[in-house]
Amino acid sequence: MNSFGRIFRISIFGESHGESVGIVIDGCPAGLPLTVDDFLPDLERRNGGTQKGTTPRQEEDLPIFKSGLFNNTTTGAPITILFENKNTRSTDYEKQRAVPRPGHADFVARAKAGGFEDYRGSGHFSGRLTVALVAAGVIAKKLLRQTSPQTPLTRREADGGIIISSQILEIGGEKDLDKGLQKAIDKKDSIGGIIECRATGLPIGLGEPFFDSVESVLSHIVFAIPAVRGIEFGTGFAAAKMLGSEHNDAIEDMSGKTRTNHAGGVVGGLTNGNELVFRIAIKPTSSTPKEQNTLNWETEKVETVSVKGRHDLCIALRVPPILEAVAAIVLTDLMLLEQQIKRVLS
Amino acid sequence: MNSFGRIFRISIFGESHGESVGIVIDGCPAGLPLTVDDFLPDLERRNGGTQKGTTPRQEEDLPIFKSGLFNNTTTGAPITILFENKNTRSTDYEKQRAVPRPGHADFVARAKAGGFEDYRGSGHFSGRLTVALVAAGVIAKKLLRQTSPQTPLTRREADGGIIISSQILEIGGEKDLDKGLQKAIDKKDSIGGIIECRATGLPIGLGEPFFDSVESVLSHIVFAIPAVRGIEFGTGFAAAKMLGSEHNDAIEDMSGKTRTNHAGGVVGGLTNGNELVFRIAIKPTSSTPKEQNTLNWETEKVETVSVKGRHDLCIALRVPPILEAVAAIVLTDLMLLEQQIKRVLS
Amino acid sequence: MNSFGRIFRISIFGESHGESVGIVIDGCPAGLPLTVDDFLPDLERRNGGTQKGTTPRQEEDLPIFKSGLFNNTTTGAPITILFENKNTRSTDYEKQRAVPRPGHADFVARAKAGGFEDYRGSGHFSGRLTVALVAAGVIAKKLLRQTSPQTPLTRREADGGIIISSQILEIGGEKDLDKGLQKAIDKKDSIGGIIECRATGLPIGLGEPFFDSVESVLSHIVFAIPAVRGIEFGTGFAAAKMLGSEHNDAIEDMSGKTRTNHAGGVVGGLTNGNELVFRIAIKPTSSTPKEQNTLNWETEKVETVSVKGRHDLCIALRVPPILEAVAAIVLTDLMLLEQQIKRVLS
Amino acid sequence: MNSFGRIFRISIFGESHGESVGIVIDGCPAGLPLTVDDFLPDLERRNGGTQKGTTPRQEEDLPIFKSGLFNNTTTGAPITILFENKNTRSTDYEKQRAVPRPGHADFVARAKAGGFEDYRGSGHFSGRLTVALVAAGVIAKKLLRQTSPQTPLTRREADGGIIISSQILEIGGEKDLDKGLQKAIDKKDSIGGIIECRATGLPIGLGEPFFDSVESVLSHIVFAIPAVRGIEFGTGFAAAKMLGSEHNDAIEDMSGKTRTNHAGGVVGGLTNGNELVFRIAIKPTSSTPKEQNTLNWETEKVETVSVKGRHDLCIALRVPPILEAVAAIVLTDLMLLEQQIKRVLS
Repeated sequence: MNSFGRIFRISIFGESHGESVGIVIDGCPAGLPLTVDDFLPDLERRNGGTQKGTTPRQEEDLPIFKSGLFNNTTTGAPITILFENKNTRSTDYEKQRAVPRPGHADFVARAKAGGFEDYRGSGHFSGRLTVALVAAGVIAKKLLRQTSPQTPLTRREADGGIIISSQILEIGGEKDLDKGLQKAIDKKDSIGGIIECRATGLPIGLGEPFFDSVESVLSHIVFAIPAVRGIEFGTGFAAAKMLGSEHNDAIEDMSGKTRTNHAGGVVGGLTNGNELVFRIAIKPTSSTPKEQNTLNWETEKVETVSVKGRHDLCIALRVPPILEAVAAIVLTDLMLLEQQIKRVLS
Repeated sequence: MNSFGRIFRISIFGESHGESVGIVIDGCPAGLPLTVDDFLPDLERRNGGTQKGTTPRQEEDLPIFKSGLFNNTTTGAPITILFENKNTRSTDYEKQRAVPRPGHADFVARAKAGGFEDYRGSGHFSGRLTVALVAAGVIAKKLLRQTSPQTPLTRREADGGIIISSQILEIGGEKDLDKGLQKAIDKKDSIGGIIECRATGLPIGLGEPFFDSVESVLSHIVFAIPAVRGIEFGTGFAAAKMLGSEHNDAIEDMSGKTRTNHAGGVVGGLTNGNELVFRIAIKPTSSTPKEQNTLNWETEKVETVSVKGRHDLCIALRVPPILEAVAAIVLTDLMLLEQQIKRVLS
Repeated sequence: MNSFGRIFRISIFGESHGESVGIVIDGCPAGLPLTVDDFLPDLERRNGGTQKGTTPRQEEDLPIFKSGLFNNTTTGAPITILFENKNTRSTDYEKQRAVPRPGHADFVARAKAGGFEDYRGSGHFSGRLTVALVAAGVIAKKLLRQTSPQTPLTRREADGGIIISSQILEIGGEKDLDKGLQKAIDKKDSIGGIIECRATGLPIGLGEPFFDSVESVLSHIVFAIPAVRGIEFGTGFAAAKMLGSEHNDAIEDMSGKTRTNHAGGVVGGLTNGNELVFRIAIKPTSSTPKEQNTLNWETEKVETVSVKGRHDLCIALRVPPILEAVAAIVLTDLMLLEQQIKRVLS
Repeated sequence: MNSFGRIFRISIFGESHGESVGIVIDGCPAGLPLTVDDFLPDLERRNGGTQKGTTPRQEEDLPIFKSGLFNNTTTGAPITILFENKNTRSTDYEKQRAVPRPGHADFVARAKAGGFEDYRGSGHFSGRLTVALVAAGVIAKKLLRQTSPQTPLTRREADGGIIISSQILEIGGEKDLDKGLQKAIDKKDSIGGIIECRATGLPIGLGEPFFDSVESVLSHIVFAIPAVRGIEFGTGFAAAKMLGSEHNDAIEDMSGKTRTNHAGGVVGGLTNGNELVFRIAIKPTSSTPKEQNTLNWETEKVETVSVKGRHDLCIALRVPPILEAVAAIVLTDLMLLEQQIKRVLS
């Protein structure tokens, strides 16, 4: 399914080189003011602008509202947002039809759809659809910012609502991002990175044990972002090397706030009153200028390709607003489930 | 929700020191023979037997079938399996009511349920419920072993069905497991570990792009296992330091099988004909003999506790059959969704 | 799936002549007191006691709580309730294996399960499972009775919570129920009936337009009751013969309460502040003492059967508590979705 | 939620006087050819053309494909279809803001959304959205027509696939439809009707006992059609007056085909090899030229209104293609669940 969420539920659609991509957001509370301007900052962050290492393909990426808004305010009905695909050059891709690009979904997409897939530029598998996730994230973040959680789930920070942020920790293995990027340019190759996401202001008790643990639902949606290869919460993989007495965060006051935060804000699958912290690994961009072997479906022989076209050297650079978006989408859903966001705002 | 899955759908219930824990498995194909003996090997692996470092609490853990079987065969109706909790000693825990154990769910569980939680030995948050996951995994593994995937999703290995296995890669940071365990014993503390899971024989094309990617649904259920702090597929976090030309697996024949498997068998969210490979990080057991600070809810003062009772020094030792179980549950669901397992076996 | 509901979610299991039938109720708020005594009145109503026309098969039908309760109070964890099948006489049914009983599910159940079905007394298709629905209904009704809906969904009746009731309007076409029953006895045949269900005290605005309309979700679960053949809301089928000006209920005060209630309390899929009213049709009991033709699967020839065993002449007599139960289950779910019932009671 | 279905899953959106209404169809098999021409006949049937009694508002109702098609063929990705609202005259409605129209959702919609609803012409509650259901129905019907069900669910009719049809049985209580319509015209009032739907060619065994019975899922989606007030299967409400020996359909051959079809093709919640037959009741159009009392929200006084604008005297006339559509949507989903339609067509 191309849908996710229990109350705040999103459905994405579209193809990289089709007419448009878009999203339907169902279950958004009524009464939230929304204008195009709310969307521009995160859409621009995702586009990467003129940043070194990002694709020269520039979509204008203006959200087109098709339903669910009235007088610039949500009505509680499904919100549909389209993004047009203006700057497509399908001919770049049609030649490649016979040659599945290494690291891309071309091969599996063809097997899955029995040859009926839209093969232009990854089709429905394209990272282009993350623009729709960012749009839903803008709405979710705005909802969370103005939220005042209620007892019995008490919240530490009294003011300011729930704030989600993210930062790139390293790219190409370098903490100095320019250095990492220069490495890729010098080697005429692509690189990946590590990104961290944080959420402050969360009440205690979001999530459930087992299948609806905060880690479960967050990782579910995080792996919907193309190129993610791993996720870890709090101390994460390093926890496997620690002693129990080192890793446990001692509870020392009734707010749940602990001095250390090895748990990353989640214990027993539930938020515990601390900052939520998790990190993801992004693989190097599959499209690399380097020559690589691949199979030609028509000749059934291996040939050498160099993937041309307009691509990012480091897709990780564009991921932070997408990561914040999916985190915000999940947290909004959990807040609605715990009755911490009202169905009708006022 | 305490349920997971779209076609092969499981629902777990029970508490550590209640009368029983159990599971309902809905959507299992009719015609699968099942006896108690099918369950014993994995249940014993989970129990850890007399293995150094596992809890002295020994449940017999015999599955009690309450519904869904007739003449030792599945009927297509929901299968209910109970495990009795015989060896409970609640008094160990009742004293601790006022003192949330560090690293455990005691604090968040109480906030979530407003004080109505079953606080005996983690209650519904207990790892005890993983016995129910193992039981569902036994059924799923048996289904997968006898499966012959069909075109258009061609499968590499002609015979033997789908086989899932797992192994502990390290505990307490040591690849020599005895050494890791001895470290914990020497330090009177608990440790964690890294576990790898593999599945062979999968057809190409399981999963979907975005929200139902193989990584999404697997990570969702994997984080339902208590103590998991991270998951990575294929090369995982290390991919973030690689170059694109290094990381891409070159497709060289029509089976999809590649010489390298950096992708861990999943590209674009779909299985690609290679072995599925992922790893998880398990934190050190929260219950450690070491003294630790925590809050006393009644006095509202910090005091020092040493968690007594029967606990594992390294819970990771018992995780492999649970990890295989949840992987099998998800893969069975994906196979049913792709019509690769018949609704009625013959 | 054998599950229903979005927040208050039930899963049923079991077979007529297996060891037990039961239910898992997930999403029930924490803090609701529950004892066996709460369940007995509705379980007895369902059993029909010594009422003329009901089956001589008498199960004790005591709920056995397996999970989710602690100190006789709900904890927010899944509640599992079993009912043992003590009074089974499978041999009555095993002879009938070759002969699908007219009006029963025997024929379709066998086709569906490829011959692996539990064929003893309708197996998993049995009305026996409605005992589990009644148990969930007891919990739902208790929740609803103590509910005080909040703005913006204002409720008409200030006190008394939400009350659900039902009554048999006619059996065998007779409004005098004894007369209807006597007709069946005289004709040595079985009969059906019409039952009406009402809910008072509901807030305005439960439900949603289109797929989650109150009528949609209610009818969904109502048709889960075996033998239901139709459902109508308010004036129902008679509305099709009315004029618009006759059928419309004029809104005359801000409470939404109208003098007529042709809509049965639902407009646009939403509750409108009036009593919810709907009626269902129950077919005559399929098991009739009358001789009937049916196919013998082994001989592939038509033969004559008279269904023996312990059966109700009029199953409709036992339906009212089941109908109230499923209505209560759905309304509880809608109330939770609209944040009109708290996740933690106090 | 504005979504329905488990595999073939639809999500609708839009408002009567917004820019557009539309639908996303997820889970449609890849390989189905689709052109605009496939949609026109049912869209025109729904529009009613120049038929006496239907609204003079005429939308062109051309489907605009936004995603999921490539080379006029489905790809397996979500299909998005928009319909523009060209012929809106919102000023007709804006004056009515203070006066909830009797029988319409105005009152409940306002309470539900706390005043944030799009109040122009029923907004998101509008029957206008059924155009989107018809579009999904066109796809579902095309899939069903070319379906050849497989064993173990054998199908009676060898050729021709599954065919769904519907007919109006009566309007305004008259079997002669012209007569019924003339009555409404003469009385300057609106009327309702009864519509029957049939599906032939279905395999045995679609559906499940209890919550996913064919009656449950069909009635769920049928009540999503505005103005439906009742549904009955086979003999329906009349069954409640019959004797068991009269109502039971005797099984006389292995195909399951019976001479009578009182069950309407569904026993035990499953299709039984006979024609599926059900009927629905449509209430008289809420918008009637007759003067009626209603509340003015601003003055809080009752006033008299006559609903002007372009409305159908008998909305039932336009329902048949909508009813066929929702039946086809549900049956397609059930066929996919039973693996009777392939995920990739060829």
